[in-house]
Amino acid sequence: MRLICLPILLFAAGAIYAQQPSIASRLGYPDNARLLIIHADDLGMAHSENQASIIGLENSPVNSASIMVPCPWFPEIAAYARSNKQADLGLHLTLNSEWKHYKWGPVSSRDAVASLLNKQGYFYATVDSTVQKAKPGEVELELRNQVKKAYEAGIDVTHLDAHMRAALSTPEFIAAYMRVGKEFGLPLLLPRRVLEYDHPEINALFDENTVLMDGIHTVVPEDYRKGPEKYYDSLMKNLPPGLHSLQIHLAYDNDEMQAITVDHPDWGASWRQADFDYFTSDAFRQLLEAEDIILVTYRELRDKISRAE
Amino acid sequence: MRLICLPILLFAAGAIYAQQPSIASRLGYPDNARLLIIHADDLGMAHSENQASIIGLENSPVNSASIMVPCPWFPEIAAYARSNKQADLGLHLTLNSEWKHYKWGPVSSRDAVASLLNKQGYFYATVDSTVQKAKPGEVELELRNQVKKAYEAGIDVTHLDAHMRAALSTPEFIAAYMRVGKEFGLPLLLPRRVLEYDHPEINALFDENTVLMDGIHTVVPEDYRKGPEKYYDSLMKNLPPGLHSLQIHLAYDNDEMQAITVDHPDWGASWRQADFDYFTSDAFRQLLEAEDIILVTYRELRDKISRAE
Repeated sequence: MRLICLPILLFAAGAIYAQQPSIASRLGYPDNARLLIIHADDLGMAHSENQASIIGLENSPVNSASIMVPCPWFPEIAAYARSNKQADLGLHLTLNSEWKHYKWGPVSSRDAVASLLNKQGYFYATVDSTVQKAKPGEVELELRNQVKKAYEAGIDVTHLDAHMRAALSTPEFIAAYMRVGKEFGLPLLLPRRVLEYDHPEINALFDENTVLMDGIHTVVPEDYRKGPEKYYDSLMKNLPPGLHSLQIHLAYDNDEMQAITVDHPDWGASWRQADFDYFTSDAFRQLLEAEDIILVTYRELRDKISRAE
Repeated sequence: MRLICLPILLFAAGAIYAQQPSIASRLGYPDNARLLIIHADDLGMAHSENQASIIGLENSPVNSASIMVPCPWFPEIAAYARSNKQADLGLHLTLNSEWKHYKWGPVSSRDAVASLLNKQGYFYATVDSTVQKAKPGEVELELRNQVKKAYEAGIDVTHLDAHMRAALSTPEFIAAYMRVGKEFGLPLLLPRRVLEYDHPEINALFDENTVLMDGIHTVVPEDYRKGPEKYYDSLMKNLPPGLHSLQIHLAYDNDEMQAITVDHPDWGASWRQADFDYFTSDAFRQLLEAEDIILVTYRELRDKISRAE
């Protein structure tokens, strides 16, 4: 019986989602609006990252950001969140510790999430190792514990996303990530292509509260080396209609950030300083206005879609 | 029977220790020699601390230091230790996470050392909380796991000491600390006054391999405010004969260290910069030579006393 019923259920889940009105219309915009979240990643990872991201949030079009709960500087950004309730701050759910000389581990008890950790008790440096070794149940436990710890720290969490996209790297991890989002009524950074996986666990989690991104954008090393401003300018000028998230990394090119990113120029200190300079520039603000791009926050998505009744 | 025997055993333990030749003579120096370890604390805690301490170890009379294994920058100083085998590096065994916005927790699985942790899963900020709440068995487990992790990282550990002296704050914690030291054949930062506790567990751990300090010195806020150089100059000029350890803290007064020590001027960023400036000065080197103070390392103490057969 199950084998016969399953495809019908899956089809039904996908179909239900496809029949929903567009995100744009549900937020009150025309269907063909170009909606954008300009989103700073990696808050909590370093003091330099916290300080530059706060400046970005307060003084530039950057309008959302996410926090790495397991990281050493989490308490600094949690204190900021408590006293700046308007800030659109979510969680950059973290399953990796990628830098050479500066490390973190889980918020869960290590024994409970042993499959996520290397011999030193840190998260694996690479997503590949996590994919090979992590048990989905332990991924889900750690993701849930990061959310709980953020709430206990007094953060009004607006969304969840996935550091290094680790939580988006297998269907089982995606299902864990979606279950945690649903449990707390939070929108996720979730690409539309997850519909194509046609995976029963994932399909069963879709409903009218699910938010899918039409585009998730970030500058990659090849584009960065050609000049990140070219990539960003072109993205703004050619952004298609729909809901988009642009993932950026704001920090200062200082001693701390240079030491953290040592031997890793991609996403390194000068890269993050370049992002800071671009997104806090007058030129970027003017471009955004000229292109008639509508900035939306995860708080709107959370309150109007993820928590709609 | 036990009640009658115990005082006799304790007396014997104390007496055996008292009858040992002096540390100075066992290292080959006159009994009245003034022996000093100039010891940088808190390595691994911050990049700024690591960099300033390495400069101190390589270019000044500072001749020993200790590493905080649970801290975020542990991998950086462990890499240094692996490629600088001559450096006299021990472990600053850590039971507290004292700063406001920058935190760390245990190397053990949290469930196994729950009595050492606050609700956020970090070590308590104050030693008082640790004393009130920590179970000695969990203290011992965490101390042992820090030593194991340091060996696994390839550090030739020369000694153990106690961050914020937490491991020296109750007789039960001292016994745990001494057991871990004995297990790995390592000298400890252990003040002579522990003999006066006359505590059975402690007394039973003394033997001919035990190293006791005749003086443990550090500048405290009252002295620091009068000018740390006065305190240090006077200490050097008036150092009594015996084995002494001077605990100092080397770091730069930069963004990272200012943010870590925010709202905590004592042992803060400018304090650590002042230590760095004093101990790397020519004036200090000249004073040390004029006073005929003999610098000794924990490696000598480890190899000639703690591991003597």
